[in-house]
Parts: sequence; structure tokens; C-alpha cells
Amino acid sequence: MSHPVSPLAPKTRPVLPPIEGIALATAAAGIRYRGRTDVLLARFDRGTTVAGVFTRSKCASAPVEWCRAKLKGGKARALVVNSGNANAFTGRSGREATKLTAELAAKALGCRPADVFLASTGVIGEPLDATKFGGVMDDLAARADPAAWTEAAEAIMTTDTFPKLATAKAMLGGVEVTINGIAKGAGMIAPDMATMLAFVFTDAPVAAPVLQSLVSRAVVDTFNAVTIDGDTSTSDTLIAFATGAAAGRGAPRIDRTGDRRLAEFRRAFEAVLADLSEQIARDGEGARKLVEIRVEGATSKKSARRIAMSIANSPLVKTAIAGEDANWGRVVMAVGKAGEPADRDKLSIWFGGIRVAHRGARDPDYDEKAVSEVMRKPEIALKVDLGLGNGRDRVLTCDLTKEYVAINGDYRS
Amino acid sequence: MSHPVSPLAPKTRPVLPPIEGIALATAAAGIRYRGRTDVLLARFDRGTTVAGVFTRSKCASAPVEWCRAKLKGGKARALVVNSGNANAFTGRSGREATKLTAELAAKALGCRPADVFLASTGVIGEPLDATKFGGVMDDLAARADPAAWTEAAEAIMTTDTFPKLATAKAMLGGVEVTINGIAKGAGMIAPDMATMLAFVFTDAPVAAPVLQSLVSRAVVDTFNAVTIDGDTSTSDTLIAFATGAAAGRGAPRIDRTGDRRLAEFRRAFEAVLADLSEQIARDGEGARKLVEIRVEGATSKKSARRIAMSIANSPLVKTAIAGEDANWGRVVMAVGKAGEPADRDKLSIWFGGIRVAHRGARDPDYDEKAVSEVMRKPEIALKVDLGLGNGRDRVLTCDLTKEYVAINGDYRS
Repeated sequence: MSHPVSPLAPKTRPVLPPIEGIALATAAAGIRYRGRTDVLLARFDRGTTVAGVFTRSKCASAPVEWCRAKLKGGKARALVVNSGNANAFTGRSGREATKLTAELAAKALGCRPADVFLASTGVIGEPLDATKFGGVMDDLAARADPAAWTEAAEAIMTTDTFPKLATAKAMLGGVEVTINGIAKGAGMIAPDMATMLAFVFTDAPVAAPVLQSLVSRAVVDTFNAVTIDGDTSTSDTLIAFATGAAAGRGAPRIDRTGDRRLAEFRRAFEAVLADLSEQIARDGEGARKLVEIRVEGATSKKSARRIAMSIANSPLVKTAIAGEDANWGRVVMAVGKAGEPADRDKLSIWFGGIRVAHRGARDPDYDEKAVSEVMRKPEIALKVDLGLGNGRDRVLTCDLTKEYVAINGDYRS
Repeated sequence: MSHPVSPLAPKTRPVLPPIEGIALATAAAGIRYRGRTDVLLARFDRGTTVAGVFTRSKCASAPVEWCRAKLKGGKARALVVNSGNANAFTGRSGREATKLTAELAAKALGCRPADVFLASTGVIGEPLDATKFGGVMDDLAARADPAAWTEAAEAIMTTDTFPKLATAKAMLGGVEVTINGIAKGAGMIAPDMATMLAFVFTDAPVAAPVLQSLVSRAVVDTFNAVTIDGDTSTSDTLIAFATGAAAGRGAPRIDRTGDRRLAEFRRAFEAVLADLSEQIARDGEGARKLVEIRVEGATSKKSARRIAMSIANSPLVKTAIAGEDANWGRVVMAVGKAGEPADRDKLSIWFGGIRVAHRGARDPDYDEKAVSEVMRKPEIALKVDLGLGNGRDRVLTCDLTKEYVAINGDYRS
């Protein structure tokens, strides 16, 4: 919170409209931070469906384990998110803390603990004192407000330099529905963990299995296509809640994934996720450049993704971009180490639309001055054509700066 | 070359003894650097066997492709190494440059081009003007000296801050044989590529297939167990040459990999490779700490290796160590993201012998002050016990400092 706002932050912040069936409140429970909110309660009307995806870490946090188990019911009445303590690697006390938090929220809202979803972000390995939520939960339930989206996004921040919000409208069977999203990004400060948390809310009447299908599909090219440093939090969480309130205005209930009426909604849903995930890349620790990496001509999309991620996570590529150096040799290196089919003599590379390498050698025609200008911009597009097939993909990342090392390494100096 | 010597450099430098059948010479061919040597010629007597392993990159350099092809013959008469230009990603001109270099050396030494092995390190993507070797090759052949090991190690340096040399003796069938090695490390400066080059030389009479088996086996826990930043050069090369001259002193000719007389030689051979590879970790760019990562209790050695590499390549772990912070939460994160079997609640972690986390939670007994002292040292031992099986492994790495970013990113600022 003490870091200046990322130079890559969006210039404007959207105002999120209310969504029928959802009310939000935040409070300062004193988990770790002083002088700021650190707990969010979102209350959902009866009938709200839920779906989610979580970290692939084998050492997932206690709240992630809680949510995975409760997701099977497909119903949600509340979401409680705290910042300041990730409740990760906390053993049995971690499980007890999740149970207590859910019980406190359930009591305040008059629902079952199993209908309460949880996420925590912050310090890892320290017990979370969930009794602190007891002092604020009734008040949160009483104050819950359909308009408190910005406050919600602020309460879940850790080292994020700006709150992340996105919204979209879509027509569903002739009725306008709303999709709102909030997220926090990969900000870490010792001993805080990077945690990507994102929550998406809609009034569309979408059955839980359909919502799950939407989330699982949309995450592939949004949150899963963003990388800051290749590290994966034990707490990464994306949960979507659908109140179904738009059914009262005539929106059709969608029970089948293949329902064609879902098409526009799906696009809007993916747009919200894409917006939030790009904001996360824009708030990468120490980031000064947003980097879009496109890989074309791979043998498959999967292969293109692996090569794009190999480039995006290469410290040498990332430091070169920080240094405003169109160092395509390092891009070749990152392609080569990905372990995917690649033929050096068919490889071409572009920075900002300027081809710098062509079919296995430096492009003799490229204008170094023009490339230098491209590299000075805050947003850099890097494209690789492997010349092998039709597989293509795109990932977003940021540069690796001394500030990243300072944020993550300067605790004792 | 302009960077100060790594604080982790060995305090003493070994003097390598001559090896019968080998003579070395270096020269300044003016490939890129001024005022220093940049080409090494090693001459081998007839009957020298050769074996090697090379980068796994799919975009290997022209010299790597040359060596891979020539290795099939199993015989070597010369090695030519240049620094300043990697002859990588140079297309057809790269292939022509390797051919010309081999022809020039072959002419000077009176051997076949196919018996000349090549390695190049330096700038990538720029044509290598191999005609420059023509001006120095005859002189190199004439001046070749059995004692010029330090000069050889110096000529192949790029951004290495110290030359890397190692030597060992072993008894082979009652006769003393010698193993010498030189290497250069993962030093990169734009647009230079990281390139790990290592060359090992012995007078032991070892048939080429046996030598290949020795190299392939020894590399697993030495060069392949070292990582600086997870990036893989297009030029990584390890070649071993065995003149067999010790046969003249009664050493037995070893034609079978399983020959028991090879045991002591094998240990000495591995020790030379281990020594050189540790020196490479000690000269990681910007490194201020040498980090040994041991993983125990994994389901297999392969799984332990993957987890150790996930920890060793994690920017968050590496920056924490740079910050002298025993941030075991990030170690948990790196274990969790490795994709290998792991159970959070069985995980224990030690820094410098002090257990900081035990079975899924912070160790309540650990002394923070003692851990802080451990973290201030230049060499840090990190151990993880997964508590699942008997698989164990060890890798070496270094910390990630602002200096790394500066070396690799500060070209234009």
C-alpha cells in the first residue's frame, strides 16, 4: 500500500452498478493492517448459484480447500474475504479458522455455513485469528449496501497499487443483465504471499454447472494467460456468483451449457475476466511495461501457450524489456528452452510490429531507431511466428525491474 | 569483464598440470573484444577419443549442431573455442562459419575438419567472421603449450568475473591419470547470450562410448543440477577429450562402461565436473549468495529434482534470499507449484540446519535470531523434507539481486 500507483494503471476507474440480490460491506477487523479496511462481506439472496476455479498448487490454503468442498452444493449466500493473513500453511488451526469464519457469517446472515465462501490473502504461515471477525460480522450484515463495489475492491487489496474493478452488460433472452467483477493482484511483500483473488457477480439466472463451465472456459485466456514472475500462489481463487434476480425481469433460466441464448452473456463474462486479468498484469510488482506476447505458427494452441509462457517468464527477456532493449536473441533462447516443436530456421520475431528476426537470422532490413522507439513505450507487443502450423496464443506479462527485486528482497537491508 | 569479481569466487585458483597429448594456445582474433584473448586452440594427439552433451534447446547454435554431427566419429584432434560471438541464430552463414573454422584448424594441424570440435560464446544473431581465425590459426598451432590452462580458461570468458578451472588425479589400473577441466559460466550482457561451456581433458585411455557414458552420467548431478535463472542457452556445451597417453605408462584401455577399474576415475571425473559447475553458480550474474537446495522425502529422485528446481528458479524465493529473509512461505509456494506429489501437512523446511516449518505449520520452536544469522552468510543451505518417500536430490543456485537486473537490463538507461 505504500508503493506509488503503477504507471500502467488504467486512467479511469469504472463505477460498478448495483446487482439485484447482492449487497456488500467492508470493515477494519484489525487482522494485520492499521487504518484501513481488511474484511469484505458480500451477501447474496437465496437461489444464488456459484462456481469457481482455484490454484493448482499442491499446497493450497485452508480457504481454498473450504471453497472446493462447498462448491459441490452449487449454492451461495455469502462471501467473506479478508486481507492481511492468507490462512495458508497453518495446519489444523487454519481449518478451524475457516470453519469459524463461515459460522460467524452464517449466524449474522441466517444461512448455513456451507453456503459461505471464503478467501484470505496476506501473511502465510501465521494463524488467522478468526474471532476478530466476530466483532464486525453483525455490523457488516446490517450495513450491506448494493453500491459498495469500490470499497469491496479496496478491502481485498494487499500490495496492489490500485483497486481492480470491471463491469459489463449483456442481453440474455432479451433482458439486460449485469456482470461486475473485482480482483486483487500479484502484490507480495515479505512475508506476504502473492495471491490472485477475483470475484465475479451477476444477476443472470445461470445454473451452477453452466456457471462452472463459463468460468472454466473463460479463465483459460484471461487469468491463466497472465504471468508476473511464474510463481503460483497457494491461495489463487476465482469465484463467480449468479443471483438469478434477472429472472424476475423475464430473463430465461439457463440450465444447459450449450444454450445458444448464452452467447452474448459469455462474451461479456469473458470481457470482465479479461479486463480484471489485464489490470493484474498492469499492477505486477515493480512493473513499468505491460507486455503482450503473441505466438503464431505453433503446432497447436497448447504448444503456443507453453512457448508464450516460456518467453513471458524468462528473466532474461523480462530484464531486456525493462532495459528497453529489443533483444530478440533472448526470445530465441526462450523459444528454444520451452521444449516445444520449434525450428530455428523458420522463426520470425517482431517487436511492436517491426520484424527484427526472420527465418533464423536477423532481419537485415529492420530499422533500429524505429525499434528503439517501440521499446520506450509503456506497452510492448512481442510476436513470434514459428512457421510450423496454425497454433496461436497470447499471454500478458510485465517487465522485471530492480523495483521488483527491491519489493521482494529488501526487507532486511 | 568490467564487473567486479564475484564475492563467491573461490579463494584460490588451482594450477592445472600438463596432460600428455594436449597442448593449448590462445590469441586475440578481434572477434568482438579489444585488448584480450578471444580464441582458444587445443591440439590433441592422434587417438584422442571424444564425448559430449549439449543444450536441450530446440534452437541450438551452429557449433552445437557441428559437434553433435562430428561426435559420431568418436575421435578428436582439435578444439577451437571463441568468445565474443556465439554464432547462434545466424542461419546458413553460421553453418558456413563453423565449416570454415574447422577447415582452418585442420589445415594448421594437418588433420581432418571432422576431427575439429567447436564452441562459440558471445553475441547472438550476428554473423561470425570466421576468416579472422585464419590470421591466427597457424601461429596458435605453432605456439601450443601443455601448460597454458589458465590462459585457456581466460580466453573463453565473456562476462564471467573469474576463470574457472578444476583438476583431479585418479588411479586407473594402478597408473595415475589426470583430469583437467575449464569452464565458462552463465554470464550475459546484452546482446550476449548466457552460455555454459565446459571442456574436460584426460590422459586416461577410455574408448569414446565409455567416455560418453561417463559424461552423460556425471552431468546429471553437476551441470544439470545448477541453475542461475532458469534460462537455457542455445550454445550450452560440455565436451570431454581423452588422449589415452597414460596407456604408454601402463594404464589399461577401458572399452566397457561396466569395467570395474573405472570406479576411481569415474569419481574423480565427477568431482571435476562438480567443481566446475559449482564455480558457475558462484559466478551467477549479480550473485551474492550461493544457495544449496536439498529436497528429501520425495516420491522419487526425479520428483525431488523438479521440486528443487522449482524452488531454485522461483524469483520470489531468490529475492527473499537476496534480502536475507528466511521466507519459508515462498518455499511452500515453490513446492506447491512444481506439480509434483506434495502434502502441505507433511512438509518441513530448514534454513542452514534450523527447522523453520514442520508438518504444515511454522515450527513454534525456531529461533528467529539464529535463522537471521544463517541468512546473512554468503552460502545458504535450504532443505525441504516432503515426508512422502525416499526420493532426494540437490541443486545449486544463487540469489536474485538488483545487480542481476542491472546487468541484464540496464543497457539503455
